Amino acid sequence: MSNKEVPIPGFEVSAISGGARRGQLSFDRHVAQTPVFMPVGTRASVRTVTSADLESLGADIMLGNTYHLMLRPGEALIERFGGIHGFADWHRLILTDSGGYQVFSLEPKVDDEGATFKSTYDGSKHHLSPERAVDIQLALGSDIQMVLDVCPPLPAPKKVIRTAVERTALWAERGRAHFLTRRDAFAGQRAQFGIVQGGLDPELRQTSARQLMDIGFDGYAVGGLSVGETRAEMIEPLRASTEILPTDRPRYFMGLGDPAGLVEAVAAGVDMFDCVWPTRMARHGTALTRQGRINISAARYANSDEPLDPDFPQSPANRWSRGYIRHLLSVGEPAAARILTMHNLAWLFDLMERIRISIVEDRFAELRAETLEVWG
Amino acid sequence: MSNKEVPIPGFEVSAISGGARRGQLSFDRHVAQTPVFMPVGTRASVRTVTSADLESLGADIMLGNTYHLMLRPGEALIERFGGIHGFADWHRLILTDSGGYQVFSLEPKVDDEGATFKSTYDGSKHHLSPERAVDIQLALGSDIQMVLDVCPPLPAPKKVIRTAVERTALWAERGRAHFLTRRDAFAGQRAQFGIVQGGLDPELRQTSARQLMDIGFDGYAVGGLSVGETRAEMIEPLRASTEILPTDRPRYFMGLGDPAGLVEAVAAGVDMFDCVWPTRMARHGTALTRQGRINISAARYANSDEPLDPDFPQSPANRWSRGYIRHLLSVGEPAAARILTMHNLAWLFDLMERIRISIVEDRFAELRAETLEVWG
Repeated sequence: MSNKEVPIPGFEVSAISGGARRGQLSFDRHVAQTPVFMPVGTRASVRTVTSADLESLGADIMLGNTYHLMLRPGEALIERFGGIHGFADWHRLILTDSGGYQVFSLEPKVDDEGATFKSTYDGSKHHLSPERAVDIQLALGSDIQMVLDVCPPLPAPKKVIRTAVERTALWAERGRAHFLTRRDAFAGQRAQFGIVQGGLDPELRQTSARQLMDIGFDGYAVGGLSVGETRAEMIEPLRASTEILPTDRPRYFMGLGDPAGLVEAVAAGVDMFDCVWPTRMARHGTALTRQGRINISAARYANSDEPLDPDFPQSPANRWSRGYIRHLLSVGEPAAARILTMHNLAWLFDLMERIRISIVEDRFAELRAETLEVWG
Repeated sequence: MSNKEVPIPGFEVSAISGGARRGQLSFDRHVAQTPVFMPVGTRASVRTVTSADLESLGADIMLGNTYHLMLRPGEALIERFGGIHGFADWHRLILTDSGGYQVFSLEPKVDDEGATFKSTYDGSKHHLSPERAVDIQLALGSDIQMVLDVCPPLPAPKKVIRTAVERTALWAERGRAHFLTRRDAFAGQRAQFGIVQGGLDPELRQTSARQLMDIGFDGYAVGGLSVGETRAEMIEPLRASTEILPTDRPRYFMGLGDPAGLVEAVAAGVDMFDCVWPTRMARHGTALTRQGRINISAARYANSDEPLDPDFPQSPANRWSRGYIRHLLSVGEPAAARILTMHNLAWLFDLMERIRISIVEDRFAELRAETLEVWG
């Protein structure tokens, strides 16, 4: 093991506009264009849509969740199907969270060795350690796996955050060491990202980032943000992290997906995003539009023959009117959630494409300002 | 008004095999191949799928329900969208039930004039008469509308059935008269079917059929069967009806969609079918296969990498394994219901296609026997 290992995946920044980066994340299996938004398929499925739908929407990377999948159906079963790729018949990229975030919301018993927690499915006891998180994610076939981190719910006293940062570093070292002993088995086509912690404290964020860089990862995530703090509170610790992270490695902001947050984080040099926000909004009847979000179940849309977003003619939902979709919602027809999910994902992928183009054309600041005007 | 009116739609029987008929139901808008299975879009949507999906599956006719749509969102709103065609963006054929079946399940106040009932949505009082049923269905833009009938829940004393048959005839006459005064407004492109009642009594069935034929409809439905009686009990009253119905008009068996029932009814000369069975089965985790139905949520499918039906390679669900779909079901992922619905509809449309081919090749008896062996 050494931090001189050639990092995986191939990552190349091809254009910069202000702090924003336009790049490519290259695996043999698939190349993702960055900045990239990754829809969340917690249980190996993005709610209401299929892998075929994700392909048609042009998604590059689907997220899976280690915590949920290790419990149902279990990583051994998924491994027999050829990982999530074979299981869900999804042959672009898969990123899996380490499970840390979910486990720490369950008040686990934690010591230096790992975390013991009770399954939310059946109350059974389970253990997650940095090494086990690696093995589970290898079994899941993740192209990009996350190291097990310690993610204390915010707000928390500085002492708690500091302990979390220390243990995150300890676990990161063990997780990385274990991962590197296994990497050769996968022809170098598996990547592992470290996760910067440190709460809202810029200094602790930099300490955490340096510790991870010393270990050396294939990419770096910023975790433990976008958990209820304001956007203003989020920016400083984010920038503190990204300004010292290596420029030649991808940066991933975990759990962020609203348009204003996206442009702010892209401006801070982030390349990758995931969030349940667009799909959860959809299931609650909210459509994303260039004019902001609209709640389509409102009575005023009953007679509307306009599409969800008249300014987004490429939407896969555009053959149906607001009035029809509102009717489906109000009588509980499941097609509504699906139509809105397809729309919101397409809309967000389009925003990412517009961000990428604006970086290449060096007018990202303009798009950022426009986006903040509507969504800020 | 006269029963010498030219019937709509164009209907042509092109082949016969035993009692089974292969035909075409022709509207300017679309031509349906018969025998045809019509998926049920009660509230202007077939549950979990969209009109785009129905097109890709090759559906010819979608059902809508007058009772539900008159209450939510109301026929006036749908009319402003150009009927169900414009509302759901579905441009093949639409058949609407008159609402009689639903209304009679609500213990309505019925007299010769019509039926008064309480909405299951909000308890508000509504009235349905033969004339109003016509007007609502015209507003919904139905290509094929059903006359308001009296459908008493079975079993019922012969006296109740006889009264229902008499009132059905009375209402049919009024409904037809009202419809014919409106037909010219629609360039002759709207059809109205009568509904044969009579419970399980072959004699009453024939009385009812003759009364409707005397009035003269564009097609004839058999109603009030497939409501809990055995298949054996169903056959005699069905055959009593079809054997005297005009051979040059389409015949529609309301509410039947299981494979054994379908081949038996096709053998009795029925051309059209609808049922929630395949889509409801799908939402409960049941897949249709050439070997019979299987409940995919059973533990024995957890490790199966076979598709839902290995003998049906054209299934739109075939890229996913039984094991993956079972996982989606067991963790409550909505994609499961959609994948199974798409499969079951495709499977049933394929059965109808095999039935149509077997009639043309005059080997329907063989396919019927095969189907009954698995599904009987």
